[in-house]
Amino acid sequence: MPHKVSELAVRFGCDVVGDPDSVVDHVATLRGASNGALSFLANPAYRKYLGDSDATAIVVAEEDAPHVSGCALVADDPYLTYARMARLLHPRAVPAAGIHVAAVVDNSAALGESVSIAAGVVVDANVVIGSGCAIGAGTYIGPDVQIGAGCWIGPNVTIMGDCILGARCVVHPGAVIGSDGFGIARGPEGWEHVPQVGGVRIGDDVDVGACTSIDRGAIEPTTIGNGVKLDNQIQIGHNCVIGEHTVMAGMVGIAGSTTIGKNCAFGGNSGTSGHLTITDGVVITARCTVTSSIDEPGTYGGVFPHDEIRNHQRSVARFRQLDKLARELTRLQRAMKNQEKNE
Amino acid sequence: MPHKVSELAVRFGCDVVGDPDSVVDHVATLRGASNGALSFLANPAYRKYLGDSDATAIVVAEEDAPHVSGCALVADDPYLTYARMARLLHPRAVPAAGIHVAAVVDNSAALGESVSIAAGVVVDANVVIGSGCAIGAGTYIGPDVQIGAGCWIGPNVTIMGDCILGARCVVHPGAVIGSDGFGIARGPEGWEHVPQVGGVRIGDDVDVGACTSIDRGAIEPTTIGNGVKLDNQIQIGHNCVIGEHTVMAGMVGIAGSTTIGKNCAFGGNSGTSGHLTITDGVVITARCTVTSSIDEPGTYGGVFPHDEIRNHQRSVARFRQLDKLARELTRLQRAMKNQEKNE
Amino acid sequence: MPHKVSELAVRFGCDVVGDPDSVVDHVATLRGASNGALSFLANPAYRKYLGDSDATAIVVAEEDAPHVSGCALVADDPYLTYARMARLLHPRAVPAAGIHVAAVVDNSAALGESVSIAAGVVVDANVVIGSGCAIGAGTYIGPDVQIGAGCWIGPNVTIMGDCILGARCVVHPGAVIGSDGFGIARGPEGWEHVPQVGGVRIGDDVDVGACTSIDRGAIEPTTIGNGVKLDNQIQIGHNCVIGEHTVMAGMVGIAGSTTIGKNCAFGGNSGTSGHLTITDGVVITARCTVTSSIDEPGTYGGVFPHDEIRNHQRSVARFRQLDKLARELTRLQRAMKNQEKNE
Repeated sequence: MPHKVSELAVRFGCDVVGDPDSVVDHVATLRGASNGALSFLANPAYRKYLGDSDATAIVVAEEDAPHVSGCALVADDPYLTYARMARLLHPRAVPAAGIHVAAVVDNSAALGESVSIAAGVVVDANVVIGSGCAIGAGTYIGPDVQIGAGCWIGPNVTIMGDCILGARCVVHPGAVIGSDGFGIARGPEGWEHVPQVGGVRIGDDVDVGACTSIDRGAIEPTTIGNGVKLDNQIQIGHNCVIGEHTVMAGMVGIAGSTTIGKNCAFGGNSGTSGHLTITDGVVITARCTVTSSIDEPGTYGGVFPHDEIRNHQRSVARFRQLDKLARELTRLQRAMKNQEKNE
Repeated sequence: MPHKVSELAVRFGCDVVGDPDSVVDHVATLRGASNGALSFLANPAYRKYLGDSDATAIVVAEEDAPHVSGCALVADDPYLTYARMARLLHPRAVPAAGIHVAAVVDNSAALGESVSIAAGVVVDANVVIGSGCAIGAGTYIGPDVQIGAGCWIGPNVTIMGDCILGARCVVHPGAVIGSDGFGIARGPEGWEHVPQVGGVRIGDDVDVGACTSIDRGAIEPTTIGNGVKLDNQIQIGHNCVIGEHTVMAGMVGIAGSTTIGKNCAFGGNSGTSGHLTITDGVVITARCTVTSSIDEPGTYGGVFPHDEIRNHQRSVARFRQLDKLARELTRLQRAMKNQEKNE
Repeated sequence: MPHKVSELAVRFGCDVVGDPDSVVDHVATLRGASNGALSFLANPAYRKYLGDSDATAIVVAEEDAPHVSGCALVADDPYLTYARMARLLHPRAVPAAGIHVAAVVDNSAALGESVSIAAGVVVDANVVIGSGCAIGAGTYIGPDVQIGAGCWIGPNVTIMGDCILGARCVVHPGAVIGSDGFGIARGPEGWEHVPQVGGVRIGDDVDVGACTSIDRGAIEPTTIGNGVKLDNQIQIGHNCVIGEHTVMAGMVGIAGSTTIGKNCAFGGNSGTSGHLTITDGVVITARCTVTSSIDEPGTYGGVFPHDEIRNHQRSVARFRQLDKLARELTRLQRAMKNQEKNE
């Protein structure tokens, strides 16, 4: 849908530098833009493409406006403002309301208004689905699940029994919510199951990425706070509590019974041990492993950057001798001191 | 279903301290318990909640019984005993037997008694499914697959052709069993497929977690022993052999053609190289990478705990100079010795 | 299907040492082989099994031919030649052409000749599927997707709207192609979605492993070059570009907007940060983390091998003191020099 730049400026609180009557109808990168494109500059690494961009309008910070050849939309937070404009230009496709003839919805399920149920969906007994929800093809919704209004559940998702999702959640394809936690007890003849009867309780505005799994609690529910955003291939163990507006990049693993505060950020493939408590506002960088509770907000790391393989192997060999090296150093220091004394 | 404490005590071999006529009908945590709840104490960190718990009965070790305000069920192994009682109070929901009208079962498939096939299931040619099995919605069972009696296969699972599962296996949603191993050979024009004709052979009482994948063997089957428990998001490469009663936490990766012994335990996101042999009784801690075969039972680690980011970066910088540091230390030691000689 | 060794030799350019009239009809390992089996020797570790193998024919390099007791097929590249013979003996099962009555195919979809659509498949509007493709049970193909000729798409796969796959691609069960990239912008009340309108563009002869996810681009498509082979449980972030014939083992994670060259190889669970550029011909060993761009072809590592747990813990403790140790060493060196001067 085409929009005048002046209209976007009013709607999203920007100043316009350039022709306010320009019209944009899609988003593009600075380099890939052509006529009708809206673009943005948020990462300074791309500033060099600003002057040559063919975008009709570009969302920029004030200092970058003079370098825009077309029309500049000046915003305090260009990326956030771009995001909002892009949502206007490219709204998420909403499938037509109704239950596809090839879906199976239990008679006891309660569906709100304008719910869309795609082909191959199976909705089990006593499920409640709020108004405006869309459920993608092949998805399974277990008994007694409650889904708030305006959720988008992708294709081939699995939500097991008793789980609760708030409003406006987005669950991407292949995600599994509410499968059993890894509860086993060693018996004389092998490992025995420990029943996992807590479900999963998910707040409002939560995103769950593709192929991400969130286990149900052993007794009480695993809990995901409002506004949490989980990327793909993440594993959340049973009994975890994830605080509001915490974000996790792909392949993060949170072991069971760990409680994470609000507004935390976890880099890709970082992870934590189980039974920890991590306070609000903690940043864990990519690939870092949290092995003990964290009480102080701040940034914590643990990754080893790549190295040329032979140098890395030499370093690793020395690493395994580190304790020995450190002891030798201490011995040398002592010898030195004795020498000095003796002189 | 409500059970008298005295009945549980007889059935599971406990002593009762308190009123044997108390009745429990569900499980709860020590802190979350109310009337009718059965709870337990296994992790000493929760001992502080014992005295104040409102649980009707608590499974404890003998030494903890005096601190229980309600009724104590005294057991040698409280967690195992709790697990068994919990299975009695909360049996896994067994869907009604029968083939849902929206399932597709090939005429050549042989189904045992009391098998439940949910909506959207597709069962291919010559499949054999043992009595009492439940197959969840949207699951695909490939040609010639054999599934033993009493298995629970969750929704949206994929089991490719020729795989064999023993009795009482549990396969959680999104798991993939028997997809092709990663067999490729470099040809002049690109990588070429190497056929993967071995299936997967899974023993009795095996659990496969959500979104876990087990590749079929290249020639002979990938083999998972009796009683193996695999958590979520695990990858088992082709030709692997996993010994009986070995357990793996989430996100473990076992590269192809590795053989792992019995009664091993792998922590979360640990992994191994391919073509290794790991003996019985080996414990690999979380995030550890096994790069060579292990002949000695024992515990092996390799994780780097998180650190405040600037300290970590300083340590990493030094790590990359480790070989140089070690050489300088040796040089210093030699210089010291020479000095001593000269004196 | 049985084949004479002489026929295989002509077809695949081998010399025969032994009886050219021998007949093989299946593949086997050297140790597991019996009459009628074709085997091979590529890994020198298995040379010890050569002499005792009961295989009817074995593909070997010239130097190994004298040690074969049965019939030797002598090839320049035994593994590649074996792969081709194995594909002849064990062609991928091609399901019968046609649309299963329990599949749902939109009227606007255009299907080529001899396409097979299994039960439970859902094909959305305006999809184009090339001739000879097979789509497995329960798979979802989103609107406007284009799939080239001869692709094999496994069961329970999800391909979201606007994605393009070339010819002869193989997509294993549980894979997700084209789900939203992890695009979020922080607003005053929480994280807001950034629309992800670029699709995924996949070349010819690409393999996508089980449970692997490839995110759609934010604006321009995520791009996978011809001949790329991706193993299971891999995560490719939005806007990534993967060059032709690059291969990745299981559990690799490539963060968003990273560009990887041609003919690279990534070991299991290795990964990269986002916004990097990696040149052609780079080898990243297993578990290595690439944190900056790589301009030089070569092999890069970063894994820490397992160690006996107490030794590892001691090393880790010292690691965290590394900067201090290095400073003390420098101090000692200086003291030494001063002493020498003073003498």
